[in-house]
Amino acid sequence: MKKLKIAFLLALFLCSLALAQQTRTPLPVPDIPGYKTLKADFHMHTIFSDGNVWPTVRVGEAWRDGLDVIAITDHLEYNRYKDDVKIEPGRAYAIAKPVAQQLGIILVPAVEITKTTPAAPAHFNALFVSDPAAINNPDLMTALRAAKAQNAFVFWNHPGWRVPKAEWFPHIAAAYDEKLFSGMEIYNDRNFYPEAYPWISEKKLTMFANSDVHDPMSPQPAGKPRPITLVFARTHDLAGVREALDARRTAAWADGQLWGAEEQLRPLFERAVTLENPELSARPASSIMLRVRNSSAIPFQYRIKAPAWLTTGDNTLAAEAISLLRGSVAKTAAAGEQRVALELEVANAWVGPGRNLTARLPLSLTVK
Amino acid sequence: MKKLKIAFLLALFLCSLALAQQTRTPLPVPDIPGYKTLKADFHMHTIFSDGNVWPTVRVGEAWRDGLDVIAITDHLEYNRYKDDVKIEPGRAYAIAKPVAQQLGIILVPAVEITKTTPAAPAHFNALFVSDPAAINNPDLMTALRAAKAQNAFVFWNHPGWRVPKAEWFPHIAAAYDEKLFSGMEIYNDRNFYPEAYPWISEKKLTMFANSDVHDPMSPQPAGKPRPITLVFARTHDLAGVREALDARRTAAWADGQLWGAEEQLRPLFERAVTLENPELSARPASSIMLRVRNSSAIPFQYRIKAPAWLTTGDNTLAAEAISLLRGSVAKTAAAGEQRVALELEVANAWVGPGRNLTARLPLSLTVK
Amino acid sequence: MKKLKIAFLLALFLCSLALAQQTRTPLPVPDIPGYKTLKADFHMHTIFSDGNVWPTVRVGEAWRDGLDVIAITDHLEYNRYKDDVKIEPGRAYAIAKPVAQQLGIILVPAVEITKTTPAAPAHFNALFVSDPAAINNPDLMTALRAAKAQNAFVFWNHPGWRVPKAEWFPHIAAAYDEKLFSGMEIYNDRNFYPEAYPWISEKKLTMFANSDVHDPMSPQPAGKPRPITLVFARTHDLAGVREALDARRTAAWADGQLWGAEEQLRPLFERAVTLENPELSARPASSIMLRVRNSSAIPFQYRIKAPAWLTTGDNTLAAEAISLLRGSVAKTAAAGEQRVALELEVANAWVGPGRNLTARLPLSLTVK
Amino acid sequence: MKKLKIAFLLALFLCSLALAQQTRTPLPVPDIPGYKTLKADFHMHTIFSDGNVWPTVRVGEAWRDGLDVIAITDHLEYNRYKDDVKIEPGRAYAIAKPVAQQLGIILVPAVEITKTTPAAPAHFNALFVSDPAAINNPDLMTALRAAKAQNAFVFWNHPGWRVPKAEWFPHIAAAYDEKLFSGMEIYNDRNFYPEAYPWISEKKLTMFANSDVHDPMSPQPAGKPRPITLVFARTHDLAGVREALDARRTAAWADGQLWGAEEQLRPLFERAVTLENPELSARPASSIMLRVRNSSAIPFQYRIKAPAWLTTGDNTLAAEAISLLRGSVAKTAAAGEQRVALELEVANAWVGPGRNLTARLPLSLTVK
Repeated sequence: MKKLKIAFLLALFLCSLALAQQTRTPLPVPDIPGYKTLKADFHMHTIFSDGNVWPTVRVGEAWRDGLDVIAITDHLEYNRYKDDVKIEPGRAYAIAKPVAQQLGIILVPAVEITKTTPAAPAHFNALFVSDPAAINNPDLMTALRAAKAQNAFVFWNHPGWRVPKAEWFPHIAAAYDEKLFSGMEIYNDRNFYPEAYPWISEKKLTMFANSDVHDPMSPQPAGKPRPITLVFARTHDLAGVREALDARRTAAWADGQLWGAEEQLRPLFERAVTLENPELSARPASSIMLRVRNSSAIPFQYRIKAPAWLTTGDNTLAAEAISLLRGSVAKTAAAGEQRVALELEVANAWVGPGRNLTARLPLSLTVK
Repeated sequence: MKKLKIAFLLALFLCSLALAQQTRTPLPVPDIPGYKTLKADFHMHTIFSDGNVWPTVRVGEAWRDGLDVIAITDHLEYNRYKDDVKIEPGRAYAIAKPVAQQLGIILVPAVEITKTTPAAPAHFNALFVSDPAAINNPDLMTALRAAKAQNAFVFWNHPGWRVPKAEWFPHIAAAYDEKLFSGMEIYNDRNFYPEAYPWISEKKLTMFANSDVHDPMSPQPAGKPRPITLVFARTHDLAGVREALDARRTAAWADGQLWGAEEQLRPLFERAVTLENPELSARPASSIMLRVRNSSAIPFQYRIKAPAWLTTGDNTLAAEAISLLRGSVAKTAAAGEQRVALELEVANAWVGPGRNLTARLPLSLTVK
Repeated sequence: MKKLKIAFLLALFLCSLALAQQTRTPLPVPDIPGYKTLKADFHMHTIFSDGNVWPTVRVGEAWRDGLDVIAITDHLEYNRYKDDVKIEPGRAYAIAKPVAQQLGIILVPAVEITKTTPAAPAHFNALFVSDPAAINNPDLMTALRAAKAQNAFVFWNHPGWRVPKAEWFPHIAAAYDEKLFSGMEIYNDRNFYPEAYPWISEKKLTMFANSDVHDPMSPQPAGKPRPITLVFARTHDLAGVREALDARRTAAWADGQLWGAEEQLRPLFERAVTLENPELSARPASSIMLRVRNSSAIPFQYRIKAPAWLTTGDNTLAAEAISLLRGSVAKTAAAGEQRVALELEVANAWVGPGRNLTARLPLSLTVK
Repeated sequence: MKKLKIAFLLALFLCSLALAQQTRTPLPVPDIPGYKTLKADFHMHTIFSDGNVWPTVRVGEAWRDGLDVIAITDHLEYNRYKDDVKIEPGRAYAIAKPVAQQLGIILVPAVEITKTTPAAPAHFNALFVSDPAAINNPDLMTALRAAKAQNAFVFWNHPGWRVPKAEWFPHIAAAYDEKLFSGMEIYNDRNFYPEAYPWISEKKLTMFANSDVHDPMSPQPAGKPRPITLVFARTHDLAGVREALDARRTAAWADGQLWGAEEQLRPLFERAVTLENPELSARPASSIMLRVRNSSAIPFQYRIKAPAWLTTGDNTLAAEAISLLRGSVAKTAAAGEQRVALELEVANAWVGPGRNLTARLPLSLTVK
């Protein structure tokens, strides 16, 4: 009888492994000198607050989608399913952890602090929490201080959500002045907050782009992943993630746009984009094709600044593909070799408000 | 303060509506004379047994996938998450019902009876249950009798699962002899049970193809839906589904194959497949193109039996598309009109073990 | 020996039928009262000018893509491959015609008149030509007059192509004043000409959107077809197309936008878009879901103007799918039935410069 | 006036560059020790025989599809469009060559010798021809000798085409005995010739898989490329291709199957497939997940031969993705590390008739 029961349980257990019957699609983004580039999503929910999936589902989705790091950030204060689900802060993390380990996903223990103020909602994610229950206090400042007390990394969520536009609200100013948070989402779900973006630089905040997913996440079409925070980490582990967040080495990638610091975006672009035939040769009055490989999963939009003899009919360096830049050699071009730089303005990569990344790739043209 | 709280709850409520931010893709399968053709999946799980989603997710997926009818069939006896989730038979149905109503999905109250026997696992789905808790008994026969007592429709699940092959096991024979079940899955998840298929006819069972999904279900690629039970119902409602199941008017559609009774499959095929140019005319020694429209979501494989002057390079009538059958008029063909039938053997539609559906479509050829 | 030769030729002939080994994907756009809605592309090239395919390829592509009408418009004056291909105006039409007949595609005999002027290139398509060679004259006006003499329907191609912007150039004014053309492309290839669009109304021109394809056309992704001219024709034949062009009953559909006359676009929208549950009922303080079916292949973008109790998280009625409009009934809503209209502004449908189509769909809400 | 004409021509020239407005999708197949792995298609047609595209289209398609090498093999004897196209052997090559150079595609000068015999059609491709016209002789043996005289590499095309099955026909035996051909297609278009496959080994032939495309080739879905001949070449150039063909270092990749010599397929597989976590550790009675990366574009089907504690629910190593092999450690497993090999039988890779490739990947399991 006991044997039967074991067989029965085994059968059901194997049945439930269906979660893993899928594959991981790499989402290549190059490392930069000195740092691993990790792909992270630091904002998501499960049935332990108001999400609609069991915690392990979040790990499986992240693995499938090519991510390296996630944080499950269930609301401390809002438990939609509390009549059915026993709520305990940190429980989602504990459930998800063994699967994360098996799949090699870095799982950051986290909570969402969820208040409202007269001015606006006040949602903050606290990462690297060690005692989530201790943060659960009805007073916002008290909760933030509790997070700080356990050395959490705290960031402000979706600053323009459910308000006409993001403002440096009183509660934000108060928390900031007390150094209770040090990062901010510039992108959440399907929304960019242009009015908040300058604060990254002005207030020296760490920038984030996160999904805030509540429902199951369907596989994303190629070239259109969920919002992702790129983390430039010394090491591919939890400590590496923490050090990078503290050092503000992140970038935000969402909706085909990339926001980051020039210091990281330039080497990232230069490792992602290479010329297949940098030594061109052509006769006067002939056409030229420059083959440009983008080995990353990020499609880049560009404008050619130089040389003048390169033009193009398309303005995209498609992800994980080779694109053509076309041009023509003038009828009157003098024979000989010229060494120039292909200067590109990367129209979807931002190194500051209104400022696009620029890049230079060495090139030579020999006119015969 | 109270006002703030209301605003806060509203905000979170609206946030959770994300579930519905998707579209429904129709999955056209034609009605047949006298009956609506409903698309159903009668086997799926949620966190109330060993599934990994909240019950409303199942309704959203079904709506998105073009289904009309579902049953959530959580195990009565196996509650994988019972340390976290308060288990109560029928609770998943109660949670899912309001969303089903809003989306126009017919939701059948159901449970899975989950036992094991010395010979094999013994899983049965009981549909149309009114008191699920009353069925929860450790003894299989007692449980099945309790289901019958509340007029449930009971079918045998995945007959060949976790056994070398399906057999008419002792517990099945006992339950069948007592008329405790009247249907059987011939297809479950990714498995067809060829050895069990003949019993549909021999034992007069109602046939089913179901997904048995535990994890979130990703959107299915066009032409490759989840396993589906087609229900030929007098009315598009719960009572219509029940009457059709009792009358054995179902078909199973899975993995590109269709199993059913000739009585339903022939009219279904003839309503799905029509000729665009049934009046051909051509000269001797010329080629012919017959354009065949398949307006259903079911791709049909075919073999041409007649007329001899039609051949083809492809053997598929693609779903929701028009395909070409090609042929040629002999050099010696006599002038005049001939009225013939295009006779097709439908290679992926089965009206019995080893027996394919055949169909005849009227056609004329005028040789000029 | 002769028999062998015949077998050999037959083998090769059958080999070449590969063209037809594909399917036609319907591209549903509803008819409107009194008229068939035909999908047309009146601008494309073959190796008989500067295109890169044999003429029959254009017919096969059109059939595959769900079109009803095409015109092959090889340049009269520019024959890129004349060293290899014997150029003869009308030859591409003659080659393509038998395949068009077999596939049920309406093929319009046509040429492109290709000149340049001091102000701008001067390209015109002449449709319904009976003697294409007679139009081949180095002088633009002479060529246009020759087209008129054979009762061609002439339209101005890509008015802003290779100029800073479209202008009512002197040669255009001269030709227009002499009634030598009566239509204009507002969309060509991947370009819309906003500055030219007002002339459709001001000059009473027939509007066109065409592909101007030169290379093989790959199958288009769902929802992103090539530029298409919708023709609202009394009959599904060549004469019907001609009468509709003369009567200016066309619309332009390209790049997710639709331009046309209110007279045709409103009934088109109202036949395409229907409510699945127009009789809503709900309690105060509850949410509402309105299910909206778009049975056409045109995705519609919308803004809700009324009623106020409907809002939405998405603004698209996806093609051949059902979308949700969501809203909520106020806590204080009075019981009873209200009959209202769902008023939509269709953001991607234009009935004039700066003017969107609006539509009203009857609806009732019963508060319980 | 002259200036205008130049502008006019320029405009048209730029217009025709549309061909290149696409991207190249890499089709990664790893190099093997000592050799570059080149992807080739040695069989295709243009309007210079019975194909339906201009020769440059074939180069553009190959570039887009990730190929490295092509041969345009127009029939010498069959010129379907000779009333319109001036036929000249070698003309397609001359037209395509400049575009191939710009895109970095290796273009092999070639023809198809197209005869028939009492027994069967007799089609041979001659690669590396220097004087194609000299091969055009009505007698098969004379033509083959002319090819040999100019040091062509000749292979037998589609051995089972238009016959009940491939046989070592008299004309084949005669040509083989005279060493007039040294390769054979085992795959052409959509057909594998199982009865011919053994001859690769028995007759020491070089094997090929080619498309034989006549119509435009649409972009191929991921994981389902056209038939491809893999060439293991010392150098990435024309001479490298020739040397590899002479040395019989090719493999055939088509329809999800791979045929080749063990000598090349084993290192190819071992470079393509790597373990992400080869040092597993687990407790008794726990589950294991082994993450297997396939960095190539070839999906591999597999059967696990060892170790016994690894099983799996899926049998595919998806292309350019990471798959899971799952297993479980026995309850009674002794503590300590065991070094074993993951032994796989690669079900879709064939090293001879009925013989699958096997591979071993080192692995360790530490039971804690």
